[in-house]
Amino acid sequence: MSKYLDGIVNSLSFQESKTKLPPPIRWLGDKVEIIDQSLLPHTEKYISSNNYRQVCEWIKSLRIRGAPAIGIAAAYAAALAAFELGCHDKISPDLKLALEEIAGARPTAVNLKNAIDRLLKLDLKGKKVGEAFLSEAHKILEEETNACITIGQYGNLLVPDQAVIHTHCHTGGLATGGYGTALGVIRAAHESGKKILVIVDETRPLLQGSRLTTWELQKLGIKFKLIVDGAAGIAMRKFGVNMVITGADRIASNGDTANKVGTYNLSVLSKEHGIPFYIAAPSSSFDLSTPSGEKIPIEERGADEIVSFGKCKVAPDGIETYSPAFDITPADNITAFITERGIIKRPFSENIKRMLQ
Amino acid sequence: MSKYLDGIVNSLSFQESKTKLPPPIRWLGDKVEIIDQSLLPHTEKYISSNNYRQVCEWIKSLRIRGAPAIGIAAAYAAALAAFELGCHDKISPDLKLALEEIAGARPTAVNLKNAIDRLLKLDLKGKKVGEAFLSEAHKILEEETNACITIGQYGNLLVPDQAVIHTHCHTGGLATGGYGTALGVIRAAHESGKKILVIVDETRPLLQGSRLTTWELQKLGIKFKLIVDGAAGIAMRKFGVNMVITGADRIASNGDTANKVGTYNLSVLSKEHGIPFYIAAPSSSFDLSTPSGEKIPIEERGADEIVSFGKCKVAPDGIETYSPAFDITPADNITAFITERGIIKRPFSENIKRMLQ
Repeated sequence: MSKYLDGIVNSLSFQESKTKLPPPIRWLGDKVEIIDQSLLPHTEKYISSNNYRQVCEWIKSLRIRGAPAIGIAAAYAAALAAFELGCHDKISPDLKLALEEIAGARPTAVNLKNAIDRLLKLDLKGKKVGEAFLSEAHKILEEETNACITIGQYGNLLVPDQAVIHTHCHTGGLATGGYGTALGVIRAAHESGKKILVIVDETRPLLQGSRLTTWELQKLGIKFKLIVDGAAGIAMRKFGVNMVITGADRIASNGDTANKVGTYNLSVLSKEHGIPFYIAAPSSSFDLSTPSGEKIPIEERGADEIVSFGKCKVAPDGIETYSPAFDITPADNITAFITERGIIKRPFSENIKRMLQ
Repeated sequence: MSKYLDGIVNSLSFQESKTKLPPPIRWLGDKVEIIDQSLLPHTEKYISSNNYRQVCEWIKSLRIRGAPAIGIAAAYAAALAAFELGCHDKISPDLKLALEEIAGARPTAVNLKNAIDRLLKLDLKGKKVGEAFLSEAHKILEEETNACITIGQYGNLLVPDQAVIHTHCHTGGLATGGYGTALGVIRAAHESGKKILVIVDETRPLLQGSRLTTWELQKLGIKFKLIVDGAAGIAMRKFGVNMVITGADRIASNGDTANKVGTYNLSVLSKEHGIPFYIAAPSSSFDLSTPSGEKIPIEERGADEIVSFGKCKVAPDGIETYSPAFDITPADNITAFITERGIIKRPFSENIKRMLQ
């Protein structure tokens, strides 16, 4: 719940119903349900499970993705594991292993680890662990959603009218508890009546920009242009981009930020063009235990995501690829962080610590 | 024919036969034949025609592409047009219209215009125009091929052993008369015994890197890694890239260079990392009549190249895109030009004029 901007945190159900965006993740009595993001935009399929291993598979295969969203999914997966293993009062060795499996489903986004760490700190005395975890998962979902709405309000303070905003990957409602981080800022600017144009990087290899960002922007009625990632530089010149906003998968304590591969390129191009570069992320994406970007593990994905496209093969067989899912944007390239606790400016090391404690 | 490096210009047939790369374009008695680049790497299909309009269609639809290769194709198309229109002694109004159509098949690469301008300057007195054009087309093909071999030799002077070379799009044998420009430099370095690693941008939207550069490098036995364009920055850091080399579609007299979209991004990243950035291009890609990059027309392609992928649709229907085929790399970002007449260093305006006159 925001300490700074009262009166906006309860508007989610109104906003989401108004725009008819589906909830990214829901608890249905005894199981968790998500919309399968890997099939969007052409197929809107909901899948559900009461098996934590299945939820881990969803996270690994990017059926649910976006750092805040997978943090929430991890909390629900932990509740499912605890129900399955029937723990009372304390975390059994089996459940501990299951929690490690969940926290390690993907290595870069810190939200997974942060969600599990939060569950590990709960007072479980006299409680069914599954119930305690589930109650906390509901809280995490609610907090993440509210955080995004507040991020949107703070971020909107930075958006001029007629702004041309460049973004990368997908950071909308589906990638979070709802509403979105970078896309939440864009949405808040639009909802406040500003006329904006969004430049959307398609975001290879998995095209979250083409598939998901365009889909949400279209539903929200926000004007945009889709480009290939290689056209970012020429688009900045042609459209007079005013600001770049992306999300984050993990922010180190010095401000170095891991985000979808291509974010670093965009930050360098922003610097070259004198364009402010913002990261919009909830406090759950910050990792004070990681001192700098060099210490953030970068997930490498398989060659198939580059050499084929759906069922189309686009490169010769048996070639070598390098397929990092993320890259590191150094703190030096970042103008400010937009969080639910306020806008974090330089010096980052000091201000990140202060704002998040 | 190189004035500088004797003894290498006749080695093409040996090189091409050794590596089993197909010729990009051939004259077969009464028609021109190409390999359909749009179907590579999985289908190696040769197509031929004696109709200049068909050759224009090949150029427009990128069945043949690469600035030097389409310059050669334009010369053969002009010969076919002259045969069809039966001109003697001079260029008829009908043929003039056909030549304009050919020169305008694609707007950015200057090689089309340069090839047609060269034909327009021929002394046609007492000659069948078709025969004169055909003879000149053969000369252009031979010169372009030899130019690439010489570019390779000059460029190799800049390549350290153990070099990691980053390249964009496709600039190999198929994009030229044979041997390649940027890829010709890479090939020459490899053939001279240097151990090199090539970082290949996949080059969205049409994936010339994935489809064509990898295919040629694989046939040539040169080690490479394919990346998505967005991974260029992280790859520069991870692999310690020593140099970036790309081709060019048009080089203005001040050195500003139009090349495949994404080249500008790569030049900015090179500058950020202190990596030399070279353009390898024959003299036919220079345009002294264009003073700067702002005056180079940038072709915009249809939305379908971004929103679908083969038969897969990857974005919602009816969205807006911005799809420039090229971008402009300012001369300031370029370390040197590698041409068949030597390596052009700063000051570019002065040295480009001097070297090309």
